[in-house]
Amino acid sequence: MSGWIAIAGLGPGDEALVTPEVTDVLGQATDVIGYIPYVARVAPREGLNLHPTDNRVELDRALHALQLAADGARVVVVSSGDPGVFAMASAVFEALEKHPEYQDTDIRVLPGITAMLAAAAHAGAPLGHDFCAINLSDNLKPWDMVEHRLRMAARGDFAMAFYNPRSKSRPHQFERTLEILLEECGPERLIIFARAVSTKDEAIRTVPLGEATPDMADMRTVVLVGNAATKRIGRYVYAPRSAT
Amino acid sequence: MSGWIAIAGLGPGDEALVTPEVTDVLGQATDVIGYIPYVARVAPREGLNLHPTDNRVELDRALHALQLAADGARVVVVSSGDPGVFAMASAVFEALEKHPEYQDTDIRVLPGITAMLAAAAHAGAPLGHDFCAINLSDNLKPWDMVEHRLRMAARGDFAMAFYNPRSKSRPHQFERTLEILLEECGPERLIIFARAVSTKDEAIRTVPLGEATPDMADMRTVVLVGNAATKRIGRYVYAPRSAT
Repeated sequence: MSGWIAIAGLGPGDEALVTPEVTDVLGQATDVIGYIPYVARVAPREGLNLHPTDNRVELDRALHALQLAADGARVVVVSSGDPGVFAMASAVFEALEKHPEYQDTDIRVLPGITAMLAAAAHAGAPLGHDFCAINLSDNLKPWDMVEHRLRMAARGDFAMAFYNPRSKSRPHQFERTLEILLEECGPERLIIFARAVSTKDEAIRTVPLGEATPDMADMRTVVLVGNAATKRIGRYVYAPRSAT
Repeated sequence: MSGWIAIAGLGPGDEALVTPEVTDVLGQATDVIGYIPYVARVAPREGLNLHPTDNRVELDRALHALQLAADGARVVVVSSGDPGVFAMASAVFEALEKHPEYQDTDIRVLPGITAMLAAAAHAGAPLGHDFCAINLSDNLKPWDMVEHRLRMAARGDFAMAFYNPRSKSRPHQFERTLEILLEECGPERLIIFARAVSTKDEAIRTVPLGEATPDMADMRTVVLVGNAATKRIGRYVYAPRSAT
């Protein structure tokens, strides 16, 4: 029996945003591996082994997937959103590089609706012009690099999407992010806090940067920042197709 | 009867990448509006009016959708990929702003798998770290702005995704893009040409920048550029989760 790994994106939460490709591969799986709340989204069934693990053990989880596939298992590694955007796909390739004995593993990545796309859709079209996606966590990169990227993105007048804007262990960084944005973009620039997008807890709030406060974001929030031309029309926020 | 507009993303081509949310809304529609090849992806049925239109008439198309919805139609405006990423969502909000008589229209945006996510998935995980999306067409913005954004993205060491890299009417701009990237990122930086992603014509080719030539991209290509840490492992290309 020949095993494989599919690294699959479950989308931001709503089951209607899971692609048929992902639903199909979950139906073929013998094993599902991932962070506890994502594995909890997969329906249990006879013959399917669920392996929920805690946060911050991405490389162990990836190695476990490689080992299971080598033993013939059909393994789906699940992420929320898209597995290639601040999620498990890079971790699996890192594990593959560290463990060349698994180099012949059949690995596919199955894209998903990443949080910023669902957040943008539910807010209007704030990513309708050139934009950047930045992970604000400094668990895996120096904070100086985050600050530098924020400034480059602002000076290029990119719209921006921030993942992992704020956590209990690093409460001051999002405060600093807002300071930098205010300095670079001014108080009128629109900022959107999209919490728990596409779930029953969804809440979307848009304010000018001058009114934004750090507590508007938490771990379940994706933050979107407009470019210089971004505006409101009724309850929608959008970036015009033409530059200013 | 109360009309509405849903601006829906059909994904990059493969029907297995169309979300159930979009399939469901197409089943409720009375009218489908969009660029000819995208409307051609919607199955005809009794009671469904298809309105395929040519390229570059986005605002006319958006106004038509608003008019039909005002008359009670259930209108789906279709884009390929995600409707909020260089597609129809911004055009509909622009039309709404120009025509305030339609301000009470019920409008929803339904996200889709945008080309760069499918391209990244099929290449490995080249967007696994911070990245930018840039539309290289200067139809709606000055070319100088594109050059400036390329430099800011490179200096921030963002991975990059380019939409509309090259067309017959502007053959020299992608050549200029490659020159700028070579200057800013050096000849070893990896660049991925992903053509017709998720269709039967899919072709993905990765080369170092020093070997990239303008003819590697056409209108059906999404181009991805790695960051300084991006590497190959076997047939995959990925951005490590840690910065260099």
